[in-house]
Amino acid sequence: MACIFCRIIKGEIPSFKLFESEKTLAFLDIGPLSKGHSLIIPKHHGAKLTDIPDDQLLEVLAVTKKIATATGATDYNILQNNGRIAHQMVDHVHFHFIPKPNEEEGLQIGWPTKEADKGALATYLEELKAKM
Amino acid sequence: MACIFCRIIKGEIPSFKLFESEKTLAFLDIGPLSKGHSLIIPKHHGAKLTDIPDDQLLEVLAVTKKIATATGATDYNILQNNGRIAHQMVDHVHFHFIPKPNEEEGLQIGWPTKEADKGALATYLEELKAKM
Repeated sequence: MACIFCRIIKGEIPSFKLFESEKTLAFLDIGPLSKGHSLIIPKHHGAKLTDIPDDQLLEVLAVTKKIATATGATDYNILQNNGRIAHQMVDHVHFHFIPKPNEEEGLQIGWPTKEADKGALATYLEELKAKM
Repeated sequence: MACIFCRIIKGEIPSFKLFESEKTLAFLDIGPLSKGHSLIIPKHHGAKLTDIPDDQLLEVLAVTKKIATATGATDYNILQNNGRIAHQMVDHVHFHFIPKPNEEEGLQIGWPTKEADKGALATYLEELKAKM
């Protein structure tokens, strides 16, 4: 079994475990962007969010809230990356909880907004809705 | 009522609506980082994730998956920002679904990892667990 997070779930690799239930595990990130940086993962193995059944994701945000509250962070980011180009490093779905105590620490975000063409958005909306 | 997202929920401001249920609303972002950039929000008003009751968040990730699947995106980021310094612009909890089709479009991420002191992590773990 090559997946490092599956090995952490099985206890084959130690982790700084914050929370564990039947479906969910949470632990401190050992390469933190800031103090309190944690990972919340479904135990169900899947590389991307769309690979995880809905019922395996039900606790993720509640556990994230628990950790956020425990850290006392007032500013923070929740981030879940899918694919190398989107900065995913481990191919097992994981949600980052990253406190943002100041400009230097925590997640750095670039936001290259594009001018929205309202007509194109309306057309695309109908296209997406037909697929949902 | 000053909250722009509460006004969208009430229908006072139009939106490119993708999904709506009793607890959840999703619509296209009108200042997209890439084609398909969408917002998924709990209807319950609250500025930060920790302000939203757990049961009001249960559908968020399932709806996000639905949208991700409809777009056909293979690479994407899920992001939820809390606080100005963490890039939150509207004080009503919202989850961004942002396709990452190439380096130029979509979310830009900076990842200033720090060297982790394992002893400090172990100490902080106990501190957090005592508060959970």
